Amino acid sequence: MLAEDAPAPPDWGNPPAVRVAVVATGTIGRSWIVAFARAGCRVAAWDPNGNCLADAVAWARAQLPRAAADRVIPCERLAACAAGADYLQENGPERLDAKQAIYRALTEVAAPRALLASSTSTLDITDISALVSTEDQARCVVAHPVNPPHVVPVVELLGGRGTSAATVEAAARFLTAVGQRPVRLTRYVPGFLLNRLQAALVREAVHLVATGVARVDDVDAVISDGLGLRWALMGPFGVANTNADGGAREYFTRYGSSFQRLWSDLANDVRLTPDLIERIGREVDAMYPAVSRERLRAWRDEMVTALRQTRTPADP
Amino acid sequence: MLAEDAPAPPDWGNPPAVRVAVVATGTIGRSWIVAFARAGCRVAAWDPNGNCLADAVAWARAQLPRAAADRVIPCERLAACAAGADYLQENGPERLDAKQAIYRALTEVAAPRALLASSTSTLDITDISALVSTEDQARCVVAHPVNPPHVVPVVELLGGRGTSAATVEAAARFLTAVGQRPVRLTRYVPGFLLNRLQAALVREAVHLVATGVARVDDVDAVISDGLGLRWALMGPFGVANTNADGGAREYFTRYGSSFQRLWSDLANDVRLTPDLIERIGREVDAMYPAVSRERLRAWRDEMVTALRQTRTPADP
Repeated sequence: MLAEDAPAPPDWGNPPAVRVAVVATGTIGRSWIVAFARAGCRVAAWDPNGNCLADAVAWARAQLPRAAADRVIPCERLAACAAGADYLQENGPERLDAKQAIYRALTEVAAPRALLASSTSTLDITDISALVSTEDQARCVVAHPVNPPHVVPVVELLGGRGTSAATVEAAARFLTAVGQRPVRLTRYVPGFLLNRLQAALVREAVHLVATGVARVDDVDAVISDGLGLRWALMGPFGVANTNADGGAREYFTRYGSSFQRLWSDLANDVRLTPDLIERIGREVDAMYPAVSRERLRAWRDEMVTALRQTRTPADP
Repeated sequence: MLAEDAPAPPDWGNPPAVRVAVVATGTIGRSWIVAFARAGCRVAAWDPNGNCLADAVAWARAQLPRAAADRVIPCERLAACAAGADYLQENGPERLDAKQAIYRALTEVAAPRALLASSTSTLDITDISALVSTEDQARCVVAHPVNPPHVVPVVELLGGRGTSAATVEAAARFLTAVGQRPVRLTRYVPGFLLNRLQAALVREAVHLVATGVARVDDVDAVISDGLGLRWALMGPFGVANTNADGGAREYFTRYGSSFQRLWSDLANDVRLTPDLIERIGREVDAMYPAVSRERLRAWRDEMVTALRQTRTPADP
């Protein structure tokens, strides 16, 4: 039973009511700062490397309007960063021992009711939280973003064996309120959803290049001037639904045997050899002969934002 | 050697100089009419079913400004449609015997230099053209569009054993000139590029739903609010290039072993059972509770056009 003077939980659907701590401020962490502060949260930030923290805070503030920039607070110590935070987003190194150490430290300094969310892309939160108490495990959750989260909204949410349903619900509510799109996994699978789906496409793309069926630029164009134009609007199930008069049921029934045949012909055994990687590298360079990688990356993020602004709902 | 009075080949890079015949005017054929007439071509159209032809021509003209609509000419007979055409786009039924019969008929009525392009999505042009002369085989080529081609630019181009390199070159030049994005395959593979890449993604998406890891709407959101936002700009190789400071070489070198591990964990054995299809159907219906499939399809095409207009090149 909670003590009578325990603080009430924050209103997760109201970002200004939620105090956030961003723990470790590399590429992902600094983008999280922007996403949270933009939505109205007070964001305390900490990194074990003081220069990294200073760079991250300067960069994040430069992305934000003045009022939001003022909500970003760099902290010299983890304890100060965590103090009073309702939601902590951890972005430490992607090694189990490092994550376990961070989670032990977080449970010592965070307020007892605070949520402890990890940006891990590969680890199981059951393992990450293995060294903390059962009570603390209940508030640990994976919130894996796409890089950078202030541009791409999807966040993969999943609990571990000890995570409470209320923790996952609260994290989903909060992330939705700050403008992200949380998606739920019922259990841990390697690569979660996003990296599995990406890996499936990449495997066949690499196979088609490796076997000489097509060049890198032509395989890429099939996506960017073909399938990708729809996938910016709908996933594979939504696309199936619009590809038959009777919707997804008719589509998968009518083309079921075609899919089964094609699936049995797709590449399962693809090897990324150094020669193949070098060939891919050369053909990628030839696709973008006159533009730096830095510019390409900035263009990608500007364009993703523009595409999101262009999209209107199907049912206005 | 050509007779001295043989007509000069058209300037494939100048659509108004190219006279097109669209042979069979179902969903794909009528969209091709719009793509060609919009670009300035005179487009003769024929279908064995007179009502289908009339509907297609009326629909196509309604999509086009007046001057372009006037360039669309319905023909009662195949011979009249083909007469004088430089480029024929065939969109008949997807059965080998039907295609072979159409190609025999086309070679009898088409001008000797005309290109004979097929919209087939599954058949090998070597087989389709097996019953025509070696000379005629040289001018047969697959030009497989995405539905609808006047909205989505990618066209998969590939020759058969008898196709001349000049035919593939001319088709690529012409399709580029009318605003499509031709991609080349060096040889026939089932599903070409597009349906293979789509099938690879769909297989893993179906697997994640079938095994209860995530719901249909969450898997779809990983694409539409995640990976798809980039894939509307770049294919998997272009994305890899922006995901590491050292570009695609560094990306595939650094994450090579992660990919290999993930590839070995992806689903290879997925079965589209009636129960699974019904579950997918129900979850798709729940994603779009308040909008008709007809409206969804119109929205999809409007949005694809809007996204294409929003995109600007990385190197302006």
